[in-house]
Amino acid sequence: MNANPESLSSNDCELQLRADGSLRHLLTLKGLDKALIIELLDDAESYLSPDGTLPVRSDALAGRTIGNLFFEPSTRTRASFDLAGRRLGADVLNLDVNTSSRKKGESILDTIYTLEAMAVDIMVVRDAGAGVPAYIARNVKEFVSVLNAGEADVSHPTQGLLDLLTIRQHRPDFENLVVAIVGDIQHSRVARSAAHGLQTLGVGELRLVSPPAMAPVDAELSFARTVSTLDDGLRDADVVMALRIQRERIDDLDGIPSVGEYFADFGISEDRMRHAKPDAIVMHPGPMNRGIEIDGSLADGWRSVITQQVTNGVAVRMAVLAHVARAMQK
Amino acid sequence: MNANPESLSSNDCELQLRADGSLRHLLTLKGLDKALIIELLDDAESYLSPDGTLPVRSDALAGRTIGNLFFEPSTRTRASFDLAGRRLGADVLNLDVNTSSRKKGESILDTIYTLEAMAVDIMVVRDAGAGVPAYIARNVKEFVSVLNAGEADVSHPTQGLLDLLTIRQHRPDFENLVVAIVGDIQHSRVARSAAHGLQTLGVGELRLVSPPAMAPVDAELSFARTVSTLDDGLRDADVVMALRIQRERIDDLDGIPSVGEYFADFGISEDRMRHAKPDAIVMHPGPMNRGIEIDGSLADGWRSVITQQVTNGVAVRMAVLAHVARAMQK
Amino acid sequence: MNANPESLSSNDCELQLRADGSLRHLLTLKGLDKALIIELLDDAESYLSPDGTLPVRSDALAGRTIGNLFFEPSTRTRASFDLAGRRLGADVLNLDVNTSSRKKGESILDTIYTLEAMAVDIMVVRDAGAGVPAYIARNVKEFVSVLNAGEADVSHPTQGLLDLLTIRQHRPDFENLVVAIVGDIQHSRVARSAAHGLQTLGVGELRLVSPPAMAPVDAELSFARTVSTLDDGLRDADVVMALRIQRERIDDLDGIPSVGEYFADFGISEDRMRHAKPDAIVMHPGPMNRGIEIDGSLADGWRSVITQQVTNGVAVRMAVLAHVARAMQK
Repeated sequence: MNANPESLSSNDCELQLRADGSLRHLLTLKGLDKALIIELLDDAESYLSPDGTLPVRSDALAGRTIGNLFFEPSTRTRASFDLAGRRLGADVLNLDVNTSSRKKGESILDTIYTLEAMAVDIMVVRDAGAGVPAYIARNVKEFVSVLNAGEADVSHPTQGLLDLLTIRQHRPDFENLVVAIVGDIQHSRVARSAAHGLQTLGVGELRLVSPPAMAPVDAELSFARTVSTLDDGLRDADVVMALRIQRERIDDLDGIPSVGEYFADFGISEDRMRHAKPDAIVMHPGPMNRGIEIDGSLADGWRSVITQQVTNGVAVRMAVLAHVARAMQK
Repeated sequence: MNANPESLSSNDCELQLRADGSLRHLLTLKGLDKALIIELLDDAESYLSPDGTLPVRSDALAGRTIGNLFFEPSTRTRASFDLAGRRLGADVLNLDVNTSSRKKGESILDTIYTLEAMAVDIMVVRDAGAGVPAYIARNVKEFVSVLNAGEADVSHPTQGLLDLLTIRQHRPDFENLVVAIVGDIQHSRVARSAAHGLQTLGVGELRLVSPPAMAPVDAELSFARTVSTLDDGLRDADVVMALRIQRERIDDLDGIPSVGEYFADFGISEDRMRHAKPDAIVMHPGPMNRGIEIDGSLADGWRSVITQQVTNGVAVRMAVLAHVARAMQK
Repeated sequence: MNANPESLSSNDCELQLRADGSLRHLLTLKGLDKALIIELLDDAESYLSPDGTLPVRSDALAGRTIGNLFFEPSTRTRASFDLAGRRLGADVLNLDVNTSSRKKGESILDTIYTLEAMAVDIMVVRDAGAGVPAYIARNVKEFVSVLNAGEADVSHPTQGLLDLLTIRQHRPDFENLVVAIVGDIQHSRVARSAAHGLQTLGVGELRLVSPPAMAPVDAELSFARTVSTLDDGLRDADVVMALRIQRERIDDLDGIPSVGEYFADFGISEDRMRHAKPDAIVMHPGPMNRGIEIDGSLADGWRSVITQQVTNGVAVRMAVLAHVARAMQK
């Protein structure tokens, strides 16, 4: 990792804004203005057909070049950004990590400077290192934007936005909402970004439901309620979001000796959903481990909004790309 | 493999048709209507210049998205579909198998649902598992088409169509034609799809030529004649198609102890071609093992239509893509 | 390697020209006409904005297909050709080496014939084997062009052109110029192509600076001066080009037992640059090993034209692509 550790202590939220308050980079939802979040959700909605599917394209990014730098493997997020960019008319350059210069020992900044010199306008970055997107954002030229596509356990802001949009489509009244996020909260960038967005939109109650060994340790999530049993966590919830579990973590976990036991204790199923509101919806960021963190029939059933999350992901990324491109020099 | 075994027993041919008899998916040539096959060959021909090369593009697929899902490695078929799609104006999304969600344990259906939700219109699927393309076709939404780009040993329908088109260009009178397919018939999806297409077009005689250990076992190929020596197989043939041999299979084979012996017994060469018709043509699906199943000078010589097969492959895939897209909702 | 050894002895320079003297392939700068090099540099400059950045696109290659065949890993050169092609309106097909047919034992010529048959117009080839680009060029059909994107230790002509363009932007008076190339000259295609180009443009003095074990052995570079200490090499130089060092080679080197010692002896730094002209510029082909062949602060400092080299790389590749495409049949 070449990320400067001091980058972690700085204010990523301020860093991502232009002087006029618009978004130049998207690094985190933490501290992002409520009006700006709502603007992005509204923009994303404008890329959806009335029936919620993805409509025709635009040329908002014609002549622009997007570089997809995925230093961690990804299918869905990479494909989502790729399609979002192309449907706005951009050229999308997918850099193959396996054959990348980083293998040859090049520093991440030199890779970035190279892309800048090739006139890449927007860099979409996924990295296992905390602070990498902000570190890059601090070092690019003024006409370049950086979008965080997944950063260690820290942040996954476009995932957060698509989760907010999906919830808003079904339960627009955030103040009266009970949202339960279930799984390995401690290691989840998905949970963190959803939590920050929900906090800003004034969610009624947020519950973070996990075995004690996976409970949040960050003070930043202290506005949420930590719950250690699933039935308590689901009680009267409007929205239930299951997180993908890393199978390899289960083995190491005190009190969760097997995948089967994890499902018994924290797996979401129609049966367990009887504790939630009768019409509660179910979310998952994908890819799913069916039968581990979520029952397959629940994932495919009437409560599930999981495929709508995927559709919204493309729309949200189109909105973010178009937003940051709007202020770029011609 | 997540493919439901019962999928194998169902009628893939009916599954691939729309109510009006047009093609919605392309899963197999087995049982496909003669008129439909001829329509696809005619369409493919319309994408070729009079001199047989690939001409200008069209915008038949403008605004459409094609997802290339290759769960087995492929250069030529993937590139062929990629170029075919782009020359029709589509966006082509190549999913990298090495970094795919399937590695993370996601089920194949969840991958498909994700692509559907991203508004991928046509899914081009290659998989080592028998029944996978039909399984996917049975589970996609009504506006999505699935094209089989190579399925286990079972089916490779666009390869079959390009083989038919190539034969028709040189020997249009199918009824009076003797076609010999030479190699590991038992494990060849190329042989199977060619055989089904040739049967439907009423080929005069089809010979499947192989060592006994590689002879067909399917009742479905019983309309063809099984031949166990090359000279008998080639006798008076108009068309000779060599199949790519898997080198690793030769070692295990009774009576074929070495690659050199395989070439001596079943390798096609100009010398062996003296048994065929004087003007017989030679085909190969590629990639070739020169000196094993085919002599290099024969592959490069005047009888060879091998590069024309590659050109026809792009034209056939353009025809299939345009055909299935014609009935899609706007 | 399937390259015919006799290909190495032939005249690659003549092979790359059309009868009218224009460029059909780009294989080497060695022996290339001065007027042609200057034309390519002028064309490249026309793709740059007055401020040296990359401007708008053209449709010079609309309807053309470029195949990127990188049989060695590469990020920057592949991305540079990819963007150059797309910014001229071409379809760019990136062939994945890991899943390529060459793994299946297909000969390189069969891969080429396949791409030809798919109507790929321009093949961009990187290969670890000497003679491979020329071998391909000798075997393609008359309407296909081959561009060498890095060939063993032998040649990297688009890198050479971008180096020439960068030098010309800063020091247009080649005759009075002292250029020092520092590093593993013996194994560097970058050094060879730069040297050939500089020789043709009539550079005042070219110095090849390296430890004895990395000194050039080719008679073809005998017009340059071989220097074995850095301070002598840099003395009054106008242009200093550091080469990327292969770390694994240092260990084997007599007299250079460690990376640290290599930097002490041959690493370029602001301090060592005191021997050069006061306003000397510093170049590097990338990716850099900071602290080994070049000091990081020098690479980021006012003398460095390294990112301008990257920008020029895209412009030079656009110029070469447009040049070879101009004479293609419609």
